[in-house]
Amino acid sequence: MPARRSFSIIACVLASWQLVRSQPADLRTKVDQWVQANQRALVSSLVDLLSIPNVAADRENIRRNAMLLRDQLAARGFTAEILETAGNPLVFGEFHVPGATRTILFYEHYDGQPVNPRDWRQPSPFTPILRDGRMEDGAKEIPNGLTTLRTFDPEMRIYARSASDDKSPFIAFCAALDVMKALGIRPTSNIKLILDGEEEAGSPSLVPAISKYRDRLSADVMYILDGPLHPSGQPTVVFGARGNLAIELTVYGPKFALHSGHYGNWAPNPAMRLAQLLATMKDEQGRVTIEGFYTGVTPLTAEEQAMLRAVPDDPTSLTKLFGIASPEREGLSLQEALQLPSLNVRGLSSAFVGADARTIIPDKAIAAIDVRLVKETPADRMARLVRDHISRQGWHIVDREPDDATRAKFSKIVRIAARGGTNAYRTSPLLPISKQTVSALAGVFGQPPVQIRTSGGTVPITPFIEALGFPAMSLPIVNFDNNQHGENENLRLGHFFRGVTTFAAILTM
Amino acid sequence: MPARRSFSIIACVLASWQLVRSQPADLRTKVDQWVQANQRALVSSLVDLLSIPNVAADRENIRRNAMLLRDQLAARGFTAEILETAGNPLVFGEFHVPGATRTILFYEHYDGQPVNPRDWRQPSPFTPILRDGRMEDGAKEIPNGLTTLRTFDPEMRIYARSASDDKSPFIAFCAALDVMKALGIRPTSNIKLILDGEEEAGSPSLVPAISKYRDRLSADVMYILDGPLHPSGQPTVVFGARGNLAIELTVYGPKFALHSGHYGNWAPNPAMRLAQLLATMKDEQGRVTIEGFYTGVTPLTAEEQAMLRAVPDDPTSLTKLFGIASPEREGLSLQEALQLPSLNVRGLSSAFVGADARTIIPDKAIAAIDVRLVKETPADRMARLVRDHISRQGWHIVDREPDDATRAKFSKIVRIAARGGTNAYRTSPLLPISKQTVSALAGVFGQPPVQIRTSGGTVPITPFIEALGFPAMSLPIVNFDNNQHGENENLRLGHFFRGVTTFAAILTM
Repeated sequence: MPARRSFSIIACVLASWQLVRSQPADLRTKVDQWVQANQRALVSSLVDLLSIPNVAADRENIRRNAMLLRDQLAARGFTAEILETAGNPLVFGEFHVPGATRTILFYEHYDGQPVNPRDWRQPSPFTPILRDGRMEDGAKEIPNGLTTLRTFDPEMRIYARSASDDKSPFIAFCAALDVMKALGIRPTSNIKLILDGEEEAGSPSLVPAISKYRDRLSADVMYILDGPLHPSGQPTVVFGARGNLAIELTVYGPKFALHSGHYGNWAPNPAMRLAQLLATMKDEQGRVTIEGFYTGVTPLTAEEQAMLRAVPDDPTSLTKLFGIASPEREGLSLQEALQLPSLNVRGLSSAFVGADARTIIPDKAIAAIDVRLVKETPADRMARLVRDHISRQGWHIVDREPDDATRAKFSKIVRIAARGGTNAYRTSPLLPISKQTVSALAGVFGQPPVQIRTSGGTVPITPFIEALGFPAMSLPIVNFDNNQHGENENLRLGHFFRGVTTFAAILTM
Repeated sequence: MPARRSFSIIACVLASWQLVRSQPADLRTKVDQWVQANQRALVSSLVDLLSIPNVAADRENIRRNAMLLRDQLAARGFTAEILETAGNPLVFGEFHVPGATRTILFYEHYDGQPVNPRDWRQPSPFTPILRDGRMEDGAKEIPNGLTTLRTFDPEMRIYARSASDDKSPFIAFCAALDVMKALGIRPTSNIKLILDGEEEAGSPSLVPAISKYRDRLSADVMYILDGPLHPSGQPTVVFGARGNLAIELTVYGPKFALHSGHYGNWAPNPAMRLAQLLATMKDEQGRVTIEGFYTGVTPLTAEEQAMLRAVPDDPTSLTKLFGIASPEREGLSLQEALQLPSLNVRGLSSAFVGADARTIIPDKAIAAIDVRLVKETPADRMARLVRDHISRQGWHIVDREPDDATRAKFSKIVRIAARGGTNAYRTSPLLPISKQTVSALAGVFGQPPVQIRTSGGTVPITPFIEALGFPAMSLPIVNFDNNQHGENENLRLGHFFRGVTTFAAILTM
């Protein structure tokens, strides 16, 4: 009966907290001091959590994670419980603050990306190690650093799966609660947490959970504690994310590969025809030429433009880092580009290249495309536009391997498989809660946070945001260069420690 | 001293041969009868040869093959010797016919394509088996058939590496000599044979051998005993072959794959740019749009057109077999297409497709292209035309990975690697020797052979033909559906047996 046990803890905790309800002027300094004194404990808590493997398919360890998280919340006076779903369990916690009129729902996920331990420069992704900086810059491991050091240089990094994505925000969030308790500062809002165990697997159980657990999930605003800060490293608020639509095109040539000598320039070549089809989709200036692709995307207001311009991007560094002479569309800043839907060829395949190349006419050619969506361009409409465009180019569209009759009838046959349509979301930065969030961070850090109108990537919880129906925004805390989703994922400790202040600011706004 | 020993055999053989110098009217019948009576011995000779592995890299077995071939020639009265080269040895044989004014050089190769025994439906590609027909039609193995049967149905097939490509022509050639001796018919030409041990590896030692062994290789005409008959199965003479030029294009994007959400439609996409580049090379009607691509290819004369029309192609069967609605260029017959250079995208690659696809902007995209050449379009000029075309599209061309300075300077960077330029060859079908060849086959078989002006594929001995400087043509004998270069290579015995007549016709023309 964990829920009942938690209640008694809440009572005790609330009784001991002073009723300070406004953000203290020196909050940052006080939190910093507390964190400095408690670095050892914070790091230990994080290491404990990181040591439990958390690949979504690993049901047994996933549940171990969930139980630890529930217990951590319960220990802090939350009504904490494990919510069963058809997939991995959700962890839910609630903390009621008498007199508070606003309820905040915090979202995080406790599962991590699959791992291939051989690709990691450490024995196991689930045995965290400490380095004295960034591995790619030659930083060395500090043997036993995680168990012996009492304080940690902010440049040090913990290397482990989910160090950044997405376990550290939970520990920083708990620390924010702990420091507030220590300082006698009570949260200004009712607090709810929902912890997802399947985010890296597409969060299939989140939306179904709403109908089952509707009362628990109601709130005025949701903060998503996930993702990296802006590359500048400054505190960041993200008001939206692009959606994504994966489309795979398979163009059919002869039923089997033919000798390119015997039949070259007699039998049609699917690779060339695919290239010709793709070339109809974008002009030389990088503008997508599919009819209606940008429809509904209205020009930005002066205020919105100012917001984009205020983002401290560094295109010169980026082009240098990426080794590109210029962006795809000249004159479009990165932030401007992210306000538009994109069409990206993410993969091409037809027979073989390089040493494996053979003198053949391939039997088929495949292009994997992703279309990034903005709020004005929903997935279903964009899928239809792409389809209509292809049809207008004279292609016969199929949804499976063409049979002989189809092959005999149509010269240009393409199979279209559209998957993974996830819409974009965007919370207006002009809403009172948006402005309040910005101002809470500005108050604590002394300057406004970086405000991202639309981040380029796609978050699987967009359907959850849409279904909940109240404003949502992301409050990332981790370093940009965390090798998210790759091997050697890491967390810069300076970012981690500062995250405690970020969350304290929100909890006291 | 094999050469000296052979001389004594020649003397004996020549003395026993009658001096019949013209093609007997009933040659075909007589050869057929002799072959019918000697099928057992012919098959045994072939099986013995097929049982010696012959992948070019297998030096030891290659030499075993060469020695057997030399001994077979010597046994038939040839001056036979092994010619050493920097690579695998050549086998050379010569048979002088007193009074003959013409010298014919026959070319064959005794090496075979590499094998992957696991892909074969028999224990070893070098342990021949007999089937009662075509495996793909459900034909069954005849256990011990190769050692026990005395006669063989023409539909039966031997399955083994090099059964068709290219050991059976040698055995059929030797049989033609044997039957002529048995019938008392003397060859009408001096005979030379050169047997290549590296054809499937590109024949690197052939051209260098000319300067070293020039006297041995002089002749009036060369017949290439290699390749399959026309699919109709009729006797075939091939007067030329297209050349080939392999070109690989690598288009560079960012130095490493980027997240397609974070940077999609800001960072340039190399896969799309490659598609756009390829699309400039061919129009929707399949005509290559590279400037000068068809320059020099003059319209065919009425006689040449008639020759193409006489080829019994069956486009309806081909389109049905290949599952295509129509050829790439409407209104162009297969034979007409083969008189033109082609541009074929034989492979495409960029990041991943299908289940492996990831939401990235790839770092590069590669297209493997082969350009088939005709006599009027030499490899070096065509390579230059492709390069010039790409340059005119605004691309910066590199021949290695671009460095940072190059990347910073040019938006569109492509690496061009051109390899394997082999020119086309074509011997005029109007030469006296060409007409004589056709008429010799027509005389024996009662109807003209299929005459191929240019075969679509490329033969690595084209430089050898060019360097020798005298007319060359191919005299194939094996079945079209022999799984050449693939697993389960086979030889239809009816074709094999008829090949003896084909060679007897040439040796008595």
